[in-house]
Amino acid sequence: MVNETQHTCSASSSSKSDGGSSSGSESSKESSRCSTPVLDAERHERLREKMRRRQDSGDRWFSLEFFPPRTANAAVNLISRFDRMGAGGPLFIDVTWHPAGDPGSDKETSSMIIANTAVNYCGLETILHMTCCNQTKDDITGHLQKAKRLGLKNIMALRGDPVGEEWEEEVDGFNYAVDLVKHIRNEFDDYFDICVAGYPKGHPEAESYEADLKHLKEKVLAGADFIITQLFFQSETFLKFMKDCQAIGITCPIIPGIFPIQGYHSLRQLVKLSKLEVPQEIKDVIEPIKDNDAAIRNYGVELAVSMCRELLDSGMVHGLHFYTLNREVATTEVLKRLGIWKEDPRRPLPWAVSAHPKRRVEDVRPIFWASRPKSYIYRTQEWDDFPNGRWGNSSSPAFGELKDYYLFYLKSKSPREELLKMWGEELTGEESVFEVFTCYITGEPNKNGHRVTCMPWNDDPLATETNLLKEQLEKVNRRGILTINSQPNINGKPSTDPIVGWGPSGGYVFQKAYLEFFTSSEIVTALLKVLKKYELRVNYHIVNVKGQNITNAPDLQPNAVTWGIFPGREIIQPTVVDPVSFLSWKDEAFALWIEQWAKLYEEESPSRMIIQYIHDNYYLVNLVDNDFPLENCLWQVVDDTFELLN
Amino acid sequence: MVNETQHTCSASSSSKSDGGSSSGSESSKESSRCSTPVLDAERHERLREKMRRRQDSGDRWFSLEFFPPRTANAAVNLISRFDRMGAGGPLFIDVTWHPAGDPGSDKETSSMIIANTAVNYCGLETILHMTCCNQTKDDITGHLQKAKRLGLKNIMALRGDPVGEEWEEEVDGFNYAVDLVKHIRNEFDDYFDICVAGYPKGHPEAESYEADLKHLKEKVLAGADFIITQLFFQSETFLKFMKDCQAIGITCPIIPGIFPIQGYHSLRQLVKLSKLEVPQEIKDVIEPIKDNDAAIRNYGVELAVSMCRELLDSGMVHGLHFYTLNREVATTEVLKRLGIWKEDPRRPLPWAVSAHPKRRVEDVRPIFWASRPKSYIYRTQEWDDFPNGRWGNSSSPAFGELKDYYLFYLKSKSPREELLKMWGEELTGEESVFEVFTCYITGEPNKNGHRVTCMPWNDDPLATETNLLKEQLEKVNRRGILTINSQPNINGKPSTDPIVGWGPSGGYVFQKAYLEFFTSSEIVTALLKVLKKYELRVNYHIVNVKGQNITNAPDLQPNAVTWGIFPGREIIQPTVVDPVSFLSWKDEAFALWIEQWAKLYEEESPSRMIIQYIHDNYYLVNLVDNDFPLENCLWQVVDDTFELLN
Repeated sequence: MVNETQHTCSASSSSKSDGGSSSGSESSKESSRCSTPVLDAERHERLREKMRRRQDSGDRWFSLEFFPPRTANAAVNLISRFDRMGAGGPLFIDVTWHPAGDPGSDKETSSMIIANTAVNYCGLETILHMTCCNQTKDDITGHLQKAKRLGLKNIMALRGDPVGEEWEEEVDGFNYAVDLVKHIRNEFDDYFDICVAGYPKGHPEAESYEADLKHLKEKVLAGADFIITQLFFQSETFLKFMKDCQAIGITCPIIPGIFPIQGYHSLRQLVKLSKLEVPQEIKDVIEPIKDNDAAIRNYGVELAVSMCRELLDSGMVHGLHFYTLNREVATTEVLKRLGIWKEDPRRPLPWAVSAHPKRRVEDVRPIFWASRPKSYIYRTQEWDDFPNGRWGNSSSPAFGELKDYYLFYLKSKSPREELLKMWGEELTGEESVFEVFTCYITGEPNKNGHRVTCMPWNDDPLATETNLLKEQLEKVNRRGILTINSQPNINGKPSTDPIVGWGPSGGYVFQKAYLEFFTSSEIVTALLKVLKKYELRVNYHIVNVKGQNITNAPDLQPNAVTWGIFPGREIIQPTVVDPVSFLSWKDEAFALWIEQWAKLYEEESPSRMIIQYIHDNYYLVNLVDNDFPLENCLWQVVDDTFELLN
Repeated sequence: MVNETQHTCSASSSSKSDGGSSSGSESSKESSRCSTPVLDAERHERLREKMRRRQDSGDRWFSLEFFPPRTANAAVNLISRFDRMGAGGPLFIDVTWHPAGDPGSDKETSSMIIANTAVNYCGLETILHMTCCNQTKDDITGHLQKAKRLGLKNIMALRGDPVGEEWEEEVDGFNYAVDLVKHIRNEFDDYFDICVAGYPKGHPEAESYEADLKHLKEKVLAGADFIITQLFFQSETFLKFMKDCQAIGITCPIIPGIFPIQGYHSLRQLVKLSKLEVPQEIKDVIEPIKDNDAAIRNYGVELAVSMCRELLDSGMVHGLHFYTLNREVATTEVLKRLGIWKEDPRRPLPWAVSAHPKRRVEDVRPIFWASRPKSYIYRTQEWDDFPNGRWGNSSSPAFGELKDYYLFYLKSKSPREELLKMWGEELTGEESVFEVFTCYITGEPNKNGHRVTCMPWNDDPLATETNLLKEQLEKVNRRGILTINSQPNINGKPSTDPIVGWGPSGGYVFQKAYLEFFTSSEIVTALLKVLKKYELRVNYHIVNVKGQNITNAPDLQPNAVTWGIFPGREIIQPTVVDPVSFLSWKDEAFALWIEQWAKLYEEESPSRMIIQYIHDNYYLVNLVDNDFPLENCLWQVVDDTFELLN
């Protein structure tokens, strides 16, 4: 029942600090129109609003804590873990603050950069921890400004561990977490959601449990939005704590911190650090099996599952926070057993969205980066607004250069030796390249018995959707049509379809058939003759590394190739073939031949020269069959081309 | 073959005069994105560009000249004629300037306002004539500024007839059309396309034919873009003129003015005014039949057709300009016989677009005004930007009030007596209102033998598309579901479909079923119970005149109900059901009961009280069936409702 129609556009949020002054919102005629994306309400909500909505609707949720890795390689692995564990549907993740690890720096292993990657490249709602003791006000403001600039919206405000053994209050310094909370609210108004820590057994340094509760209440009064607790071993510990909090008037959400025991040593270390005591009955079980990792982990999972069930059954708990120790197995197992791991995460859009506030409205992307979404996000990170509803004709999409191919979140997960086994220790000609592409498509081992599980343009095995085209793809790759991207045509499948579905249920999704490949100039010449017959049906763009570009796209307009129709919503068209962006993608696609493949071989080696030859002489081609209700004609186009060549 | 990708956003055009300074275009990151509509390239072109494109592609075209009417009623009729003749696809129309008729005023019969209506409400590319002699520079600048403000983009620059018999040059005044051309270019730069008049036999006041050609060349050199000629009676006259123009270096388009003889007296008068001589062979035919209008018109059509054929066959003529004398039959007949009248004008969008430059990008409208597009244009005329690609959530669509129901372009074409015959001289109860609605749907005469060809919400007979639903509509109207708007569901029909098609060929169009009606609160109560069963499938908005509003639309989002998929283009979704706009439409829809219907009757009369009762107590309901690939369930919803009531 709606009687009033008050909607506000929340495109600009104001803040007191951070230099950039956002202009006051005007409600003149000019600014009366605004577009907001529509598929995923959560995308527009602050974390505290998401939490409230989940609580109101009775949904149970979980969140995951990670710490920053120590090496760049470990960072690459952690980011793959973000992607995998992100698929289970955490409400947020958080990244701890390691004062010893230069946490606010631009190093690929810093807390700041890991959190940045989680938000921007993995699309995860993220809380960045931040400690305050032994730091100047300016340092802290600087960190917060940087976090804001990177698109981080949530801070876990902590005191941090004092450096020396004996700790003394600094006059006018940041002595307690509450000082940090106040500082954030003073300097950044309501920009950040703030989380603070709660101690179900009382902070080890607190005068008493009651005194500690009072400190907690002070933190909430100072502006904290919710509380995550220290780990504990028994559900009663948490439930008592929660009731005590409520009794003194703490009404914000309190999220229990869950620690699935994963090994004897990690438990001992954590207990030492947190000054907690492990209950005797747990010790009794663990001590006898302390050398059997698997047994301890199984026990830990069992214990966590039953404690979580008690918490959830109490009716007082809606969300669970997991201390993962950067490991996947135990936490995932607990979540699956609890039934709160999303087995079939609904995709709000066909591509993974970024959680940067600037990108909230983004709902259209060129199809070219479908297998390299992180690269797309990186190359568009400087954009100030993102296409919404329609890609539009772009005069200069201004894609950032992708010069540093070893940006850690774009780095191949496979080491050089692995890549050589997949792509050939020694190439003997263009045909051996064809074979690599073919093996990637078929999933069959290559002639040396290795499976090709990634390609320079695809860091992952073939998408399920692409499997629909496997047979035809195999055939054409064998003959030198080296495919790097494709999608089948879809004429109105339910949005819940497990393979091609996306968006809310009750809708229908559509696609135009798409095929993108590298191929020789000889094949291109024949292809162009064949395409004349398909002039009204097939749009094409054909370009070589020098930028010579042949197309029949009308007025360089973008062509929507994926769209969805949903109940009560406007049409969503998340991927387009945009002729202008294609020229930016072309640079990246050609460069990957050299950067990822040719450079595996010695300079001047025959293998390297083969890849260099392909790079210099092949064309990158994309084809769209506009007649989506009919059978995909692109295979016929390719067949006709080969026929013409014979 | 495209090697460069230079596109510019032409959203803002700069001018030297006219007060409003448009900011210089910046090519920063922020402004690097722009949306341009994509369906109809001509919508973005200036008249001279359209002309050039037609000439380059070998298309033949026509244009139509009208003069401003003398009475408001005649204006209403002229505007219907614009709509009807506009359907034949003229490249432009032009409206003459009548110095005696206060041509620049806001009167509904002024040249300025008629041209404004043609551009904004009929969507026609329009040239406004303007004369300059005996006017001050300030007056002329004022007229030009006003024309620009109203969205007029083309001026026919004329000297005009001097007031007295003897004419003398004014020092520093506007003595010739060339002075006006120069003035326009000086004050408005390149904003207007400028047309000038050419005299195939030389201007009657010119010293000589050769001297007149020189004057014409001066006008072109001063900045005129093309030439329309005075009427003539023989194709050789024009072809010689054209060659003579080319010989002295006039290269712009020269469009022959065609005058189909429509009657003896109009011919005599025109000849007198233009000081032309009618060739003897024409006189010989006409004089004997001068009292037989039909015979003269037939001869005139014959003559015009053969002359036009000669012109077109010469290869020198691509477009023909018709002096219509505000009449339809003869010109239409000539155009049809020449094969340049578009029998099946392709609709670029399902609704008639406006030709105002501000509205160039407009490609989404709420469905509510489908039968009252002029009202929609009127109520949104103050908007500074128009939705493009997506309607978006609008905080305050700021629709203008529609207080003056007798704005001449919204006035019913039927007089009061006619309306009373259709809608009932005397109403006996709500049922007699039901009967009027039913007769409008069926096309059957009412009980007094009159056909109901319009309704307060629909000034025209039922749309062809609505005919698809006729049987069901009849059934529900009989029972008090008083429908005012509806569309069937369409699951991918070719864009060339004669009934539901729109947009360029090769595409597919889609619709969600829509039904909008007034009904009693008793029926609404039952309907709401029934709708619970259809909660996930049917979106509804139900509102009464006081604004009590019941809806299940998620977050007041708009629902796209018409969309099209085209080769090489983004998705177009031209109509939406927007919950916010619905409340503005509601005011208009309810007011029409009173303004158009109730007020036909005496105050306090039973008939008037019946309409007033409906206005006060009925609800306006709209329903959308989101499941467009399935059979329309809205009839089932209505059936279920009646079943529940029984």
